Amino acid sequence: MEAFLEIDPASDFSIDNLPYGCYSTRGGGGNGGAAAPPRRALCVALGNSVVDLGALQRAGLFSGPVLSKHADCFQTDALNGFMALGQPAWREARATLRRLLSASEAALRDDAALRAEAIVPMSDVTLHLPFSVGDYTDFYASRYHAHNCGVMFRDASVALPRNWLHLPIGYHGRASSIVVSGTPVQRPRGQVLDAASDTPVMRPCAAVDFELEVACVMGTGNELGSSIPADGAAASIFGLALMNDWSARDVQQWEMLPLGPFNSKNWATQLSPWVVTLEALEPFRCDAPVQEPGVLPYLREADRHVYDINLTASILPEGGPETLVAESNYKHIYWTFPQMAAHHTFGGCNLRTGDVLGSGTCSGPGPNQRACLLERTWGGKDPVKLEGGAGQRTYLRDGDSVVIRGWAGGGGGGGGAGRRRVGFGECRGKLLPSPAL
Amino acid sequence: MEAFLEIDPASDFSIDNLPYGCYSTRGGGGNGGAAAPPRRALCVALGNSVVDLGALQRAGLFSGPVLSKHADCFQTDALNGFMALGQPAWREARATLRRLLSASEAALRDDAALRAEAIVPMSDVTLHLPFSVGDYTDFYASRYHAHNCGVMFRDASVALPRNWLHLPIGYHGRASSIVVSGTPVQRPRGQVLDAASDTPVMRPCAAVDFELEVACVMGTGNELGSSIPADGAAASIFGLALMNDWSARDVQQWEMLPLGPFNSKNWATQLSPWVVTLEALEPFRCDAPVQEPGVLPYLREADRHVYDINLTASILPEGGPETLVAESNYKHIYWTFPQMAAHHTFGGCNLRTGDVLGSGTCSGPGPNQRACLLERTWGGKDPVKLEGGAGQRTYLRDGDSVVIRGWAGGGGGGGGAGRRRVGFGECRGKLLPSPAL
Ligand SMILES: [Ca+2]
Ligand SMILES: [Ca+2]
Ligand SMILES: [Mg+2]
Ligand SMILES: [Mg+2]
Ligand code: NI
Repeated sequence: MEAFLEIDPASDFSIDNLPYGCYSTRGGGGNGGAAAPPRRALCVALGNSVVDLGALQRAGLFSGPVLSKHADCFQTDALNGFMALGQPAWREARATLRRLLSASEAALRDDAALRAEAIVPMSDVTLHLPFSVGDYTDFYASRYHAHNCGVMFRDASVALPRNWLHLPIGYHGRASSIVVSGTPVQRPRGQVLDAASDTPVMRPCAAVDFELEVACVMGTGNELGSSIPADGAAASIFGLALMNDWSARDVQQWEMLPLGPFNSKNWATQLSPWVVTLEALEPFRCDAPVQEPGVLPYLREADRHVYDINLTASILPEGGPETLVAESNYKHIYWTFPQMAAHHTFGGCNLRTGDVLGSGTCSGPGPNQRACLLERTWGGKDPVKLEGGAGQRTYLRDGDSVVIRGWAGGGGGGGGAGRRRVGFGECRGKLLPSPAL
Repeated sequence: MEAFLEIDPASDFSIDNLPYGCYSTRGGGGNGGAAAPPRRALCVALGNSVVDLGALQRAGLFSGPVLSKHADCFQTDALNGFMALGQPAWREARATLRRLLSASEAALRDDAALRAEAIVPMSDVTLHLPFSVGDYTDFYASRYHAHNCGVMFRDASVALPRNWLHLPIGYHGRASSIVVSGTPVQRPRGQVLDAASDTPVMRPCAAVDFELEVACVMGTGNELGSSIPADGAAASIFGLALMNDWSARDVQQWEMLPLGPFNSKNWATQLSPWVVTLEALEPFRCDAPVQEPGVLPYLREADRHVYDINLTASILPEGGPETLVAESNYKHIYWTFPQMAAHHTFGGCNLRTGDVLGSGTCSGPGPNQRACLLERTWGGKDPVKLEGGAGQRTYLRDGDSVVIRGWAGGGGGGGGAGRRRVGFGECRGKLLPSPAL
């Protein structure tokens, strides 16, 4: 299937992708004129454009059996209502959009007025978080990441915590500080243990790190007291996004015993503006790592898979060129999102529409696949050299931007090679100086 | 000031209290007739009645300078809009209500139709959570509780974690599973380490505990990147509630290293239906414990105080009489809510209207003041004997209810003795059996 718009083959946003987002235009916004105040509207991405879902819905084009009964689900700036409709609605919307956007369908292609309203150049828009976040939970699902952290902080012989191979370890995160790509983040202040004096002090964090993660956006949830079986959990997942779990390592080290990371992790968590549906990722499924020892029945999956998604993290110093510092792949993750959802709900905890599950730092086996600076520099022993004479980094400097990218297919190897590219766009954030103490 | 309704001196809900809640009536609800569907409405408690705020507002009685500009703030079932208006609105609402409900004011007292609409017997209502919870954070702010846990799990010589006296330790909790008093809770299933085989197994939790806590409900918050100073933080706090942080101790022990408690804590957290404002608690202020060593400047308070609030927890087995198992007081807490808010936001994390901060288990110095079964039974070594031949408890049995109560004043000693009672009502929950595995 070809779109009626010309799509660069290198674009993240082929017609096979159609990720969901929320946009406003600078002058007008949504379909308003230049004089209207900015209005946020839901959209999908296609090539260099966004396609306004509200406009298509007002034109009566979501006419399938499910969405015709929910004629206002896109007349808002948050996907939650649509997500809560469940998989039949998501499939119908995707099929409808693919048909409407294809070269062979006239309804939108030949309606100049509707095209002018509904198709907006991406260069004219600001992107926002497209859903309202419920609760946010961050997991620790990469065996390579957990192993590396264990070797650095404990010992190679006891690198993995004893429970690690038996359950997907996670902790409750902070939903209020989830921000969209492009939002500048501010170096946090914190209480840390001063190494020289061996006393706690308050100062700007001296060890700001990123964590390259993949986020799972829950589409539907479960009632309190019930559980989501691992095997069926994929049907509850709306899609995936990129995530940078900004971290303050010195704060973390001092605060995290005995109850886990807190202020080290709650000052900013950044998401890509695009949520790529599981349906779009389907062609890029691949086997998940074999779990040995085997897991308890509630964590077993008859069809156990992850996705072949290339993941990169780069540092872009102010005025300097970008340096690629991590090249990983989502296929290395040990615990799957269905397993995380099953574990999260096994005791009866309820997941809700809009909840976010983070994969944890998505490291792979190789040294260049270590997906945060803590690991990548091996605790500072091996700083990363930046290109263009921008020096080296153990942790981030003020003015550095971190850019996370992710894509499946589109050449470059992997299970989806040769398929049209299905990408996430960028998760980008610039680190601003800390406020005065 | 006397109310025009007769109030039992033993009632938690004197005219000096006026805690906020949300109710519906069984047949009708709110001010609807018997045939109307249940409608939720905001209220305050007074003696054996609830007073419907929406009805008073529709009658034009919130006519002060702030609330007259927000004439719909009570025309909803969640306090969030009202809370977000800030302290001037809260003070004005309280002053207005005290005047309207006093024996000397005719406006409501002599308006039979309005009284019939606005004053509903508490025996006719169902109470709901009166605000929409944003994020929930649970702290660990009682030195006695932290010390006892340290002695049990580590050693008396290193009972407190090294950071404990320097910062209020907390962890992000789960907002989705916060339920109101009266909601039955279900024994969770979980993954635990089987002691006999030393292998992980899945089974119903065998160590269900309660934690008697006080919850702080944030009225206003801060922008991401800014901080709330400890000294001014009280102005951001709308009020306090009682909280039972239901806990699964066997699950906790296996899961919590290295990232903290997760499924052990996310299956139910129960709040009293009433939020008592800080203004109502003002007469019960008392000095907070002296902090030695001193704390860093961002945690210092010029006026450092807590409240003299009696706290009890009882176990009520099915059909049996209640046994008081813990008698504590909020005044024993080491870290104040303003300090928790200051620490939480010191790195730039944003608090929002409706966020909940839990105090952590509010234990006092005496053995009967240990405010959870883990501590109270000293890890099972000293089970609690129940009255009426109901046996003893290390942890809870199916069918047991836990009832938490809290009140200031009204006789019984303490700083507020002789003042009219300002109570929280109950935080009550019954433990149901676990679902089949
Ligand atoms: Ca993380
Ligand atoms: Ca607790
Ligand atoms: Mg984060
Ligand atoms: Mg809890
Ligand atoms: Ni106003």
